[in-house]
Amino acid sequence: MNYKQAGVDISRAEDALARIRDRVRATKRPEVIGDIGAFGGLFRLTGSDTVLVATTDGVGTKLELARLLDRHEGVGTDLVHHCVNDALAMGAEPLFFLDYFSTSRLDPEIFARVVGAMADACRAQGCALLGGETAEMPGMYAPGSYDLAGFLVGGVARDRIFDPVAVREGDVLIGLPSAGLHTNGYSLARAIVDRVAAREEREARAMLEAPRPELRGGSLGDALLATHRCYLDDVRLLRTAAAVRSIAHLTGGGWEGNLPRALPAGLGAVVKRESWIVPPVFRLLVDWGGVPDTEAFATWNMGIGLVVVVAAGDERPALRALPDAIRIGTVEPARPDGSRVRWA
Amino acid sequence: MNYKQAGVDISRAEDALARIRDRVRATKRPEVIGDIGAFGGLFRLTGSDTVLVATTDGVGTKLELARLLDRHEGVGTDLVHHCVNDALAMGAEPLFFLDYFSTSRLDPEIFARVVGAMADACRAQGCALLGGETAEMPGMYAPGSYDLAGFLVGGVARDRIFDPVAVREGDVLIGLPSAGLHTNGYSLARAIVDRVAAREEREARAMLEAPRPELRGGSLGDALLATHRCYLDDVRLLRTAAAVRSIAHLTGGGWEGNLPRALPAGLGAVVKRESWIVPPVFRLLVDWGGVPDTEAFATWNMGIGLVVVVAAGDERPALRALPDAIRIGTVEPARPDGSRVRWA
Repeated sequence: MNYKQAGVDISRAEDALARIRDRVRATKRPEVIGDIGAFGGLFRLTGSDTVLVATTDGVGTKLELARLLDRHEGVGTDLVHHCVNDALAMGAEPLFFLDYFSTSRLDPEIFARVVGAMADACRAQGCALLGGETAEMPGMYAPGSYDLAGFLVGGVARDRIFDPVAVREGDVLIGLPSAGLHTNGYSLARAIVDRVAAREEREARAMLEAPRPELRGGSLGDALLATHRCYLDDVRLLRTAAAVRSIAHLTGGGWEGNLPRALPAGLGAVVKRESWIVPPVFRLLVDWGGVPDTEAFATWNMGIGLVVVVAAGDERPALRALPDAIRIGTVEPARPDGSRVRWA
Repeated sequence: MNYKQAGVDISRAEDALARIRDRVRATKRPEVIGDIGAFGGLFRLTGSDTVLVATTDGVGTKLELARLLDRHEGVGTDLVHHCVNDALAMGAEPLFFLDYFSTSRLDPEIFARVVGAMADACRAQGCALLGGETAEMPGMYAPGSYDLAGFLVGGVARDRIFDPVAVREGDVLIGLPSAGLHTNGYSLARAIVDRVAAREEREARAMLEAPRPELRGGSLGDALLATHRCYLDDVRLLRTAAAVRSIAHLTGGGWEGNLPRALPAGLGAVVKRESWIVPPVFRLLVDWGGVPDTEAFATWNMGIGLVVVVAAGDERPALRALPDAIRIGTVEPARPDGSRVRWA
């Protein structure tokens, strides 16, 4: 089974973006730094040394899983952490956050659980929840469904922005473990669960709630709803110990879709797959869905949520600063076929 | 017919917000100025004289109308203008914009029409389209439906922020005409059209596309899809001629929901309803739907999209600066019953 069969076709999104790229570029103002495709947009405020980093994200169909299991708190936190990490990938500290909550018929109790958790996550990360929009759109969503978008602005001193052009051949890739799927690849995960449930003539909900020995007695629902890990404190610590050259946040598009965003043109990454243990939730999904490895690594983070690039000489201090960090590979010239991630 | 019968209950949104208000307040950082409820959130960047104004909006079920009539361009522009006006209501100039586009199955052509128009609108208003998120969520939306959220950050010098506390009794309300419903009250408008279509045994689409003498030969579809007017140039001009004290952008919640946001506690507005001609599209909807006046003015802008408060002495220069501006009322003490808009 693959992501496309589950209804998500990344090439459609690429096609869509290609059609408007020039019109988006035409909106560029002199304060805008860099081009489309980074983890956050950069805007240098006139008369200030601070560069603003803006990013927007959703939670995808993890929302549907939260609804099915009546566990809504996590998705609010997920959204904040996703945005914080994206801004972090540019070197920024979070400043403020806004949310968009949209549904057919507003249920104040569900809303309060989702957005309340979002507020708590903002507070925990020192980020102001500066505004939001609550939209009630009869007929747009299935009963009980809602959509969620987050928008975060962070700030970074100009000379502290991470820029992939600083990356050199021989640099080291440091991986930080993920807590699970984070907020990507849920349509495939859900399609796999639904198919197995249908085959076994069970309810998807029962499948998700059953304790499983492969998951150390936890349920698949627990594993899938694990909160998107926030790497803010890790990266802060790391920067006191080593010079971070660039960061990739492994989200939609998995490894091939995100790791190259932290590398300059002409360079690629060689990643040693045995350097970390793929967590059981991914192995279970791969197994149940018969998902090819290439597909799994292009859809899910497979156990590493953030990749930090440092100079070879900074590897040791980096690993010492972060107890659960792992050396996962190095930077090498890109291959002639254009692929930028080589597995070793 | 009323908004609640059409499936939108503003009291549910108020209830929802009340439940999380304290948790949102707890996220406040020292840079945040003011409290919840303004048209934009204010964030003063350390070391800069510029205050950032952040706002988020959606287009509501105007999206469904655009889909029904296969006219997608306008909603992208609507979203940008809505956000620009909200930031403007705080005194800010637009800096950058991000969008969130979410659907079950991405149609690159529709996406390009919507987001392309959004990019063009950003360019026209001098605003950078700094980023966006495109979400494909199988099963979340009805086929062909999509949702749209916009996030805008504007900037304003601290001493140029509009602040309702500057408003005095006797100040004058200047109204600027709207282009139609802008982006609010579409669920009620659509419910009215559907009901009349059902009664007359016609397709809603045919009803929307028929030329109508009441609309000077235009169709109801044209009138309903008219682009949200952007007031950026008007307010710029106005500020060169007069001192603007505060601004209300008449969006969701209509008059009673928005005009008080531009007034300090203890003051209300007296508005002379005959000072402008309610455009035919509103009269037609009120007529078809049997919508009580109170309901109409609490749902739609009824022909005035922006209300600017100026000192009495600034009325003349303000009206001279903007040829289509109208004096619509004055500021008076709030009434004992708590209502803040009195019709005269």
